[in-house]
Amino acid sequence: MERVRLSSLLDAGIETPFFIYSAAQLAADWQAYAEAVAGLDAIVGYAVKANSNPALLRRLAGFGAGAVVVSDYELRLALESGFAPQQMLMHGNGKRPRDLEAALRAGILLSVDSEFDLEQIISRATALGVTARLLLRVNPDIDPQVHPYISTGLLDSKFGFAEGAVERLRPRLQKLSSVEVVGLHCHLGSTLKSVQPLRDAARLLAVLVNELRRDGHPIQILDMGGGLGIDYSRGRDKIPTPDEVTEAVRPVLDELGLQLFLEPGRSLVARAGALIGRVLGVKDNGRKHFVVTDASMAQLIRPCLYGAFHSIELLEESVAGPQLAFDVVGPICESSDFLGQGRLLPTPRPGDGVIIYDAGAYGFAMSSRYNLHLGCAEYLVDGDSLRRVRTAETFDDLSRHFSDEPISVGTRQPSARPAARD
Amino acid sequence: MERVRLSSLLDAGIETPFFIYSAAQLAADWQAYAEAVAGLDAIVGYAVKANSNPALLRRLAGFGAGAVVVSDYELRLALESGFAPQQMLMHGNGKRPRDLEAALRAGILLSVDSEFDLEQIISRATALGVTARLLLRVNPDIDPQVHPYISTGLLDSKFGFAEGAVERLRPRLQKLSSVEVVGLHCHLGSTLKSVQPLRDAARLLAVLVNELRRDGHPIQILDMGGGLGIDYSRGRDKIPTPDEVTEAVRPVLDELGLQLFLEPGRSLVARAGALIGRVLGVKDNGRKHFVVTDASMAQLIRPCLYGAFHSIELLEESVAGPQLAFDVVGPICESSDFLGQGRLLPTPRPGDGVIIYDAGAYGFAMSSRYNLHLGCAEYLVDGDSLRRVRTAETFDDLSRHFSDEPISVGTRQPSARPAARD
Repeated sequence: MERVRLSSLLDAGIETPFFIYSAAQLAADWQAYAEAVAGLDAIVGYAVKANSNPALLRRLAGFGAGAVVVSDYELRLALESGFAPQQMLMHGNGKRPRDLEAALRAGILLSVDSEFDLEQIISRATALGVTARLLLRVNPDIDPQVHPYISTGLLDSKFGFAEGAVERLRPRLQKLSSVEVVGLHCHLGSTLKSVQPLRDAARLLAVLVNELRRDGHPIQILDMGGGLGIDYSRGRDKIPTPDEVTEAVRPVLDELGLQLFLEPGRSLVARAGALIGRVLGVKDNGRKHFVVTDASMAQLIRPCLYGAFHSIELLEESVAGPQLAFDVVGPICESSDFLGQGRLLPTPRPGDGVIIYDAGAYGFAMSSRYNLHLGCAEYLVDGDSLRRVRTAETFDDLSRHFSDEPISVGTRQPSARPAARD
Repeated sequence: MERVRLSSLLDAGIETPFFIYSAAQLAADWQAYAEAVAGLDAIVGYAVKANSNPALLRRLAGFGAGAVVVSDYELRLALESGFAPQQMLMHGNGKRPRDLEAALRAGILLSVDSEFDLEQIISRATALGVTARLLLRVNPDIDPQVHPYISTGLLDSKFGFAEGAVERLRPRLQKLSSVEVVGLHCHLGSTLKSVQPLRDAARLLAVLVNELRRDGHPIQILDMGGGLGIDYSRGRDKIPTPDEVTEAVRPVLDELGLQLFLEPGRSLVARAGALIGRVLGVKDNGRKHFVVTDASMAQLIRPCLYGAFHSIELLEESVAGPQLAFDVVGPICESSDFLGQGRLLPTPRPGDGVIIYDAGAYGFAMSSRYNLHLGCAEYLVDGDSLRRVRTAETFDDLSRHFSDEPISVGTRQPSARPAARD
């Protein structure tokens, strides 16, 4: 990776598994967005949920990225990492009071997902004495043709207002206090493989922009969400570029004089990251061959959760025994713990390194401590420099939360006895 | 729950979501196993991976349970919680060096999953100068008719030796050093709905027991794994009892004079636990109704990962608006974040409590910090006493692992310059 030999990390005895990121790849993927929005009034807001490692956040903030957050802690991390509140947005179908509080205090944009969300924002903004700038999240019922778990723009989705609902909401929007509606927001889903759904959605939102402007709302922003996929197959899939995204929506932006907000997550960080593990052994059950690694679903749940494909290679091809079709599995005691199935690989030896590619997005972010495999370390490569950007968890990180304290609620306790007079 | 009113916890302002466990339910579910093995030479080894909260572990150890662990940290926790090493077993298809080291030092039973596992155990036991007692994990290729992700006893599975492989292994087993084979182990999968597969597997293992005994191995233990389901539907499903399990295998045990080892996880702790959340709001997208709660896939991934069913109710039925079919969803920014679909519930108000039942197993154990919703608290009810048995994570638990330190590996560094002579 760049000028650091990954197998040298294993030779040096660095604990596996770990995630490692390439600063150069991150910069290149950012550059594609920077060029795509050149000449446009646009904010490219990185979706922090994809990967919230501060070392990546600081770099993205330094490039001039905005940030999209979905919780108070994501917001706090983004602010600490240098993102400007003017370029930040919080969305979410279920903002908790703590999330709203943090967003309103920071003065960032809020995407409104539902009527209850709107009312809660208004009441909290009023209490805080601030005016919140809102985007309305519209669910355009356009099929993005992706895995149902990451499709968000269909009517079965829990996200946003259906078009008809926006229509019904218009009278309520005429009587707002402590908030103003400054834009529209949609997000069709993740891993989009064509920009046509975005083009359709922009056209549809343009109609709403005009209606809301007629109602007197200062609509300035069109947030087209994120959702660009990456080519996990490393060669087979044709994935739209950021440039194609902006070209698809540019006519609407120009026509209506709107600022574009984009929310890439995956396409900014997925390629920059890899999961590195060590081979524990090779087995064969008479029907299948298995490479068992110390990397597992505890670090990368995407293969098991979505049937997602990640390219997998051995770090040192020189170790090669015969090439076979292997299931690459982890040590977690559960059949769902696989990283790849039927992969042609040379037969490795115990201790050999394995790289699972394109794990920069929704890898560590969705990791668990299943089987008490605790949080792993993360590293960042920049040219020939290597830095540890997250330390691995230890038993203390677990045990510091063990507790055995009585809690008193619900039953009326006798009030404290007054000191005896004597 | 027992004599603690759950809604009183919410009234008292306790942070949601959280897990809560009933000591009485835990005791009752243990009792069913204790009665089922009465009169048998048996160890009931709790599968720690289902839920490793020490408050539950201490109680189970106190009842006389053994423990089944799959990692060094699970082993350490189990020992600290009072389980006797003589009643403990480590299994796993990919034991890491650190896991083997811990198991061999503690002197617990080891289930051998593969040839590479056997060789690694032998070499490490030899290095430590100990003799390890082993069970051979056999994959009997019996379909347990459960979800493929939790089926473990078919030939496509990554676990265990196929029958034919044991046959081929016999010459190797004749020349063992530092280990002895004292039993056989199988595990058909989780959430078994019939004991017939167990009966079949026991018969099949009996043949192998005789063969291994003829080879001179002191086979004393038959580990039939775990895998009893529970009735997640709360009334519709007929689930085998521990008693039916022991009855199914008793003929083989009696005939061969074997000690029984059972590995229940789910059926000991699932019913004892619930996930409690608060309603954030109710929405309707024109096609579906949604209850949005602060509990999510970050705490309980089973519905999303396996399509698992958990019964869901409001804590206070008195709040009732009209009864509708709701999808109960969390606030995580992903369509897969649901807890239940199409559930008939009274329409709740924001702030109302929601209980997700039977979340004691594979709930907290598989939880993540997705969207930076950090680890939640856990409580234990015992009669009218309530104790916090795990504190919630805070931002500090995240930030204490942020790091930015240079690491030097791989490139030969110029050797330190000798001090200049002068």
